[in-house]
Amino acid sequence: MTAEPAGRPTRYFVTGAAGFIASNLVDRLLSEGHRVVGYDNFSKGREQFLESALRNPSFQLIRGDVLAFDDLADAMRGSELVFHLAANADVRFGTEHPRRDLEQNTIATWNVLEAMRRNGIRRIGFSSTGSVYGEAHMIPTPENCPFPVQTSLYGASKLAAEGLIAAYCEGFGMQGLIFRFVSILGERYSHGHVFDFCKQLLEHPDYLKILGNGHQRKSYLYVQDCVDAILRAVDTVREKVSILNLGTSEYCEVNDSVGWISEHLGVQPRLEYTGGDRGWIGDNPFIFLDCSHMRALGWEPRYSIRDSVIKTARYLLENRWLFGSAV
Amino acid sequence: MTAEPAGRPTRYFVTGAAGFIASNLVDRLLSEGHRVVGYDNFSKGREQFLESALRNPSFQLIRGDVLAFDDLADAMRGSELVFHLAANADVRFGTEHPRRDLEQNTIATWNVLEAMRRNGIRRIGFSSTGSVYGEAHMIPTPENCPFPVQTSLYGASKLAAEGLIAAYCEGFGMQGLIFRFVSILGERYSHGHVFDFCKQLLEHPDYLKILGNGHQRKSYLYVQDCVDAILRAVDTVREKVSILNLGTSEYCEVNDSVGWISEHLGVQPRLEYTGGDRGWIGDNPFIFLDCSHMRALGWEPRYSIRDSVIKTARYLLENRWLFGSAV
Repeated sequence: MTAEPAGRPTRYFVTGAAGFIASNLVDRLLSEGHRVVGYDNFSKGREQFLESALRNPSFQLIRGDVLAFDDLADAMRGSELVFHLAANADVRFGTEHPRRDLEQNTIATWNVLEAMRRNGIRRIGFSSTGSVYGEAHMIPTPENCPFPVQTSLYGASKLAAEGLIAAYCEGFGMQGLIFRFVSILGERYSHGHVFDFCKQLLEHPDYLKILGNGHQRKSYLYVQDCVDAILRAVDTVREKVSILNLGTSEYCEVNDSVGWISEHLGVQPRLEYTGGDRGWIGDNPFIFLDCSHMRALGWEPRYSIRDSVIKTARYLLENRWLFGSAV
Repeated sequence: MTAEPAGRPTRYFVTGAAGFIASNLVDRLLSEGHRVVGYDNFSKGREQFLESALRNPSFQLIRGDVLAFDDLADAMRGSELVFHLAANADVRFGTEHPRRDLEQNTIATWNVLEAMRRNGIRRIGFSSTGSVYGEAHMIPTPENCPFPVQTSLYGASKLAAEGLIAAYCEGFGMQGLIFRFVSILGERYSHGHVFDFCKQLLEHPDYLKILGNGHQRKSYLYVQDCVDAILRAVDTVREKVSILNLGTSEYCEVNDSVGWISEHLGVQPRLEYTGGDRGWIGDNPFIFLDCSHMRALGWEPRYSIRDSVIKTARYLLENRWLFGSAV
């Protein structure tokens, strides 16, 4: 509970800047008049997501990999706060390439912290995940719930990254904001359930394949609400290490998303459920977070899950290039 | 709570076999008639600790590094259960070489798990640490205490390794036994408080420098009790992932150790306290574990902390070579 610098610096470094959440964060920072250096290797990032940013003279894009330490450290020079959002965000296929989460989430975070240390940068905001709670026994799950057992390589790699950040804050006098997200939806969303459902329904409006029984409960947060929360925490938190759940106080079933999307698209698909009760190995049947800690900082989400699903569907309809050549 | 194989296999692989705890485990396994392959890079391991094992035809020593994946995977072939005890165990100086814990604890554990997967080995026992509890708010600390914040690179790296093991068990059908140790004492102990105190008192019996105020509370477990517990868990646990605290139900202050050691050595040193209340950055003032989970498996320690401190001092007096040339 040391008093640490709070408030908004002016020079930001954003890893994975061309990603879904990061590019929205970049746009917001620029709209508020800050300077931003975006760093991305474009393995998954999309240059289109930075179209607006690239027209802003306060934005600099550096192509580089978070695993290339010297490039990263050079790029970071002069920044005051690092938002580390570069990650392998694919919880689903972790067992197909078990080194990917280790490298892109755990080792990458170590690189970011070391590069910060080399540059004397003391503040970091990090996108962790509700997946670190594994099979949570407390629902909604608070940050200090019973010490969980990991169930996915993705969750394990993010928890490892959290641990590194906390230890660096303790050992090297940094300040860390760790955000445990539910799934985020909104403009530039390009993976996961809602993306898959929209893609399928544009390809074949008459049927929809659903992994699991459709009763998997899911909690989502709209990306602009997510960005609001991140910046609210930057403005207000003074603790050395702060871990903050980020989500809404509601949840839905996968079937609800299906209904909202179908309604928005004006389709009535036949629903084909596959793969048993749960979607896939390592999937969590339900992530629903107690966000009272974040709310106590004066934040609350402005959009419902239904809003965010429909906003996402609308965006995807207007940006079909995201589906590739199939649609 | 899947039913997994329990009971004692016959072919073991032990990483860090020439280390303090591991070499005691190797000797026990051999004394019970099992076959053991020991793997060590001798960066900290001592060949002397394996003198007895090396005379046993059921023991094979392979010199290799856990970071050399192919060597590790080759060496592991044919084993049925892996005890992964190789580690950087130096919580104290983590901030002087922040990559060491990442490599030797986290990445090394990933290598061990991948090597197991390549060889079709399904069972792993792992030496984790009470340091993963950070600044525990529940004392004695149970395994499912409130989700802690990491305070040391060492604890963070071990927690990351735990997460990898749990995720591999979930994703690849392995069985993991994760032991969170308090500090272990006994024959072949060669670092930490008791070692340092014995070394100092042999060098200069008239005074003793103590990091911290001497009131730091510490919980210790005797190494043979530790080995008993590990094997008891192998015999009885059937869960996919089991996390077990290992310690005694008592604790002492650093000053108590000082008294017992001084009494055993027949010295009356002047005590010089340095460094404030706590020993060092990242030191936990008190690790005291609730071990009822392990006790429910039918284990209990046979030796008190006093016993284990005195046994350690006796061993060190008889093995002064461990102190190097100074004594």
